[in-house]
Amino acid sequence: MATIKDIGVGAAFNIVTATIFLLIFAFLRLQPINDRIFFPKWYLKGMRDSPSSAGAAVTKYVNLNVRSYLKFLSWMPAALKMPEEELIEHAGLDSVVYLRIYLTGLKIFVPITILAFAVLVPVNWTNDTLDDLKVVHSDIDNLSISNIPHGSKRFIAHLVMAYVFTFWTCYVLKNEYERVATMRLRFLASEKRRPDQFTVLVRNIPPDPDESVSELVEHFFLVNHPDHYLKHQTVYNANKLADLVEKKKKMRNWLDYYQNKLERKSKRPTTKTGFLGCFGSEVDAIDHCKSEIEKIGKEEAEERKKVMKDPKSIMPAAFVSFRSRWGAAVCAQTQQTSNPTLWLTEWAPEPRDVYWSNLSIPFVSLTVRRLIIGVAFFFLNFFYVIPIAFVQTLANLEGIEKALPFLKPLIESPPIKSFIQGFLPGLALKIFLIVLPTILMYMSQFEGLISQSSLERRTASKYFIFLFFNVFLGSIVTGSALEQLDTYLHASANDIPRIIGVAIPMKATFFITYVMVDGWAGVSLEILRIRAFVLYHLKNFFLVKTEKDREEAMDPGSICFYWSEPRIQLYFLLGLVYAAVTPLLLPFILVFFALGYVVYRHQIINVYHQRYESGAQFWPNVHLRIIVALIASQLLLLGLLSTKGLEEATPVLLVLPILTFWFHKYCTHRYKPAFVRNPLQRRRR
Amino acid sequence: MATIKDIGVGAAFNIVTATIFLLIFAFLRLQPINDRIFFPKWYLKGMRDSPSSAGAAVTKYVNLNVRSYLKFLSWMPAALKMPEEELIEHAGLDSVVYLRIYLTGLKIFVPITILAFAVLVPVNWTNDTLDDLKVVHSDIDNLSISNIPHGSKRFIAHLVMAYVFTFWTCYVLKNEYERVATMRLRFLASEKRRPDQFTVLVRNIPPDPDESVSELVEHFFLVNHPDHYLKHQTVYNANKLADLVEKKKKMRNWLDYYQNKLERKSKRPTTKTGFLGCFGSEVDAIDHCKSEIEKIGKEEAEERKKVMKDPKSIMPAAFVSFRSRWGAAVCAQTQQTSNPTLWLTEWAPEPRDVYWSNLSIPFVSLTVRRLIIGVAFFFLNFFYVIPIAFVQTLANLEGIEKALPFLKPLIESPPIKSFIQGFLPGLALKIFLIVLPTILMYMSQFEGLISQSSLERRTASKYFIFLFFNVFLGSIVTGSALEQLDTYLHASANDIPRIIGVAIPMKATFFITYVMVDGWAGVSLEILRIRAFVLYHLKNFFLVKTEKDREEAMDPGSICFYWSEPRIQLYFLLGLVYAAVTPLLLPFILVFFALGYVVYRHQIINVYHQRYESGAQFWPNVHLRIIVALIASQLLLLGLLSTKGLEEATPVLLVLPILTFWFHKYCTHRYKPAFVRNPLQRRRR
Repeated sequence: MATIKDIGVGAAFNIVTATIFLLIFAFLRLQPINDRIFFPKWYLKGMRDSPSSAGAAVTKYVNLNVRSYLKFLSWMPAALKMPEEELIEHAGLDSVVYLRIYLTGLKIFVPITILAFAVLVPVNWTNDTLDDLKVVHSDIDNLSISNIPHGSKRFIAHLVMAYVFTFWTCYVLKNEYERVATMRLRFLASEKRRPDQFTVLVRNIPPDPDESVSELVEHFFLVNHPDHYLKHQTVYNANKLADLVEKKKKMRNWLDYYQNKLERKSKRPTTKTGFLGCFGSEVDAIDHCKSEIEKIGKEEAEERKKVMKDPKSIMPAAFVSFRSRWGAAVCAQTQQTSNPTLWLTEWAPEPRDVYWSNLSIPFVSLTVRRLIIGVAFFFLNFFYVIPIAFVQTLANLEGIEKALPFLKPLIESPPIKSFIQGFLPGLALKIFLIVLPTILMYMSQFEGLISQSSLERRTASKYFIFLFFNVFLGSIVTGSALEQLDTYLHASANDIPRIIGVAIPMKATFFITYVMVDGWAGVSLEILRIRAFVLYHLKNFFLVKTEKDREEAMDPGSICFYWSEPRIQLYFLLGLVYAAVTPLLLPFILVFFALGYVVYRHQIINVYHQRYESGAQFWPNVHLRIIVALIASQLLLLGLLSTKGLEEATPVLLVLPILTFWFHKYCTHRYKPAFVRNPLQRRRR
Repeated sequence: MATIKDIGVGAAFNIVTATIFLLIFAFLRLQPINDRIFFPKWYLKGMRDSPSSAGAAVTKYVNLNVRSYLKFLSWMPAALKMPEEELIEHAGLDSVVYLRIYLTGLKIFVPITILAFAVLVPVNWTNDTLDDLKVVHSDIDNLSISNIPHGSKRFIAHLVMAYVFTFWTCYVLKNEYERVATMRLRFLASEKRRPDQFTVLVRNIPPDPDESVSELVEHFFLVNHPDHYLKHQTVYNANKLADLVEKKKKMRNWLDYYQNKLERKSKRPTTKTGFLGCFGSEVDAIDHCKSEIEKIGKEEAEERKKVMKDPKSIMPAAFVSFRSRWGAAVCAQTQQTSNPTLWLTEWAPEPRDVYWSNLSIPFVSLTVRRLIIGVAFFFLNFFYVIPIAFVQTLANLEGIEKALPFLKPLIESPPIKSFIQGFLPGLALKIFLIVLPTILMYMSQFEGLISQSSLERRTASKYFIFLFFNVFLGSIVTGSALEQLDTYLHASANDIPRIIGVAIPMKATFFITYVMVDGWAGVSLEILRIRAFVLYHLKNFFLVKTEKDREEAMDPGSICFYWSEPRIQLYFLLGLVYAAVTPLLLPFILVFFALGYVVYRHQIINVYHQRYESGAQFWPNVHLRIIVALIASQLLLLGLLSTKGLEEATPVLLVLPILTFWFHKYCTHRYKPAFVRNPLQRRRR
């Protein structure tokens, strides 16, 4: 069993690792050759150019200024310096509010940690229960609730603290919700006339034998919104056209490349017309590109005409623009016809944010898809171990030897054999866990949501549920979710919190290690951008022909909300659950939040390029998940205390989840509309 | 244990009782003196007058036409004759759709009964399990699922039937929902320009130091709905004024009475000015009344002025009228300001439907009230036995003798003593059950709903929950809800359906008796209107002075949705649960629905006077509760079969509740908006 010393060693080791990562980062970022990896945002903004070719060739790639290495941690204060207003301008509201999740973590857990160490640690420490019992225990348990004797009055301290923690968390949550809602409203109001504030997306336009979709839309809105309707744009299925446009773009790039070459070498470059320019007859490259571009241009024009005429490629959806925000708000928030499944209106997502392929799914199909995904996700969540176990039985040594007999001599050699035997069984599971967010994203896409942002939100919900059952509960009850399901079905509603609650103090060391390995190291790795680093240099070396290519090789990436946010929520859950049980876990959580905040702030300022801007529409989900974590922590504490000879505590603690749930209802009612609808009132500024 | 013969005797007895009630009704309704009790609706419509005073005095009170007695059941076809369109015109949509609940019951259960008797009864009957086992059982059990041996393949018949019943019920429900939604939309569209279709109720108007509420409303809507705003009416707290108006009305009635007297007797009547006209100085009655009316009129005018001026009596709510239905629809469906707790708009209820005292409750208070009532209802539902047991311990013989010692000799006499001992303990419970709907109504009023119709709907939901737990589950698990709660908390999620499911077949006879006593007799009693009958004749004898008084004594009553609808739902629940288990119960349910339909149709045509018209807004609740009953029946069948050695059935049956739930979601999405919002599209007729 781990002692405090073990934990200390582990912490030291992880701190060293994280520091090494940060040092490597500090070193790499100073090299001009890596500039496009660590500062792509500024390139995209046009505020930074490739290092000038003036000066020695070496300084183009390596930084020789020794002084700059001394200040290797200077990026941290720089990341914190930019004021919030400017950051919104620079990176958008989504990113800034995403950072607020870390801030919320700090706001919730700093006072809780102080209180827990001031009150609970002494209360727990000054007992000798565990020593008297002579059970095997680590000295961490001396700091935890396990050290308090059965039926002791000292549990009142934990009860009171549970109340204090709940009220403090709710207080912070309410303030944050209010703050974010205000930020969102101000953001929407302060923007320039963004087209999506005047536009409504209309779906499920009923087919009409006499009129085309376009005419139908025009007539409908001229009749029903006569004073505000401006114009509309129907949605076409133009995949082929998109392909042609892409092809033309590529050809243009080649043309650029050859023209650059011509300038430098003053010899007209040639190419071959066959596959990949390697076969066929040799022609003048520039002329060939020009004629190709012309040809594609003609095809494009034809395809465009065809799409506009072909009724099959017109989808029953349209973007309708209004003369005023008022008109658009009215149309988006009201029901248009007596059949609520036709003429569905909602605020149009930003143009970048639209998920085009889902625009034309009919209503009945949507509900069926939702049912299918609901059932599929249930099975994925609780039964995912079955196919993995199946793959594992296939992917053993004998299986490989049967399928690929020529590998036999290689595999049979002892070191490789033991490696495969130790590594393979876990491989299927690891691959699954890495691929999981993508699988969940496909599931959400199948559900028929119409914007990238809503897809990410939905996927994040699914991922959080998965983490909750399979990582959090799975580590505590130690069993696959399938086995857990069996337990939950066969245990009474009373017993479930008890079974889990009792196991919680025992898992504290495990989760402390988890926070360090997954949390600290994960965050420090994020800043290194290893994948982008490798890919950029590979591309730069092999593929980049023109300046434009280099720009495309840059890949700034973005905050992957759908897989990063649920992981943060896991730390909220751990923090809240262990706050009253084993306060020792809290400082580790604090470090995670602080480190995450600085790192992501840096990344948002210098690296990430958001693909869309939803105006912080994800906050209600963040709020909901913290509430879920809070209620889970209350129920588990209830289960734990009910085995500690303190039956009187049950009704006292039962009040908390009820109050918390009501608090959530209140907040939803009070603030959520700001994230769904736009009010009609004219803004006074 | 009851045999089929016992049930037959019981049924015969109840049929005779019901027939006697109907005969009494048929006799009483033909007497002219009772005309106002059994046909008040026609009086209120002005289509019927008091029996003319021409002819013999006797015929004014007693019907001597023998022939009319022969056709004593003629009211039944008469009640069924009126076509639906005319009935809507005559009694409103609410009443007609209320009748559709009975019709839906018939539509669901007639085919189910036929199928169950054709398939399940033979399958159950042709076994000898119970005879072989030599357990004590009644021959009713031979017809039920209990008669099938453990693990028999015959259970497949029950599985298939469960599917058929579910699909048929859903099919009927979908059709009905669609039908009722269409009826509602047509009803709203076909009406004359009703004021509430142009009016929106605005609540939570924020206080403004510079402007009065009225000015504030005007400015707000002139700015934000400039093209559609017509005018508004603020809400005043004018209880004192209402008292004065009531007093004036009473005085006018006295004046009428004295003037009638004067005409008949040609001697000026006198009255005394003191208490109840019995004390004080004698004055001329007509003059006295006239001067009193004048005095009250003055007071009234003063009070009116005061109310208009006093800022304390102006409530932060207003009815805002718009120029067009479109404008009102827009305002009612959109959010007005960035703070969604201010300027709350919703469709104004009909003037008759408004529940005035709740109009000015602020938002935070509303959410707190909801929390309080939620907790209170939970306790009422599960712990109501505690106060009743307490009252019962007080209300025993010794308690009465102590409190009222002079009653001692009376109470001690053996017959009275045994009566009290047998009767008193149950009395508190019976009184509680009678008063319960009223208590629930008070709870809903405290919650702050703003229309009578929504109050009735909310109360109905509460009452249904109470009936579900305390009557349905309480009779099966035999224990108070408190004991049940203990069971539910300590049994696993798996075991709860099993515990209840196993007990279900055993309770069939009990519920058959319940249907007959509560259902059949209850409906037949309803048509007799005993309470109204007694009260009217008492009032007519002692209090009625003028024609107006007689009109007021009439008390036509109305469909008490909040207590009658949940009771119908109980029969849906019983029917669906027993359809696959003990089909013998079904014919009894059918009789209930048929009888209820005829009786309530008669009452709606001839008696009830609805206090408001909500346009069938209650249908989504009716639909929801039938769905709840359906899912409960599926889960209980699952629990029952899982003890019958048919484990394979569990996943097959588990599909049903999922599908049913999804069906409910679909219906809600598809049809519910028609009951909440009005569409914007112009209606083409």
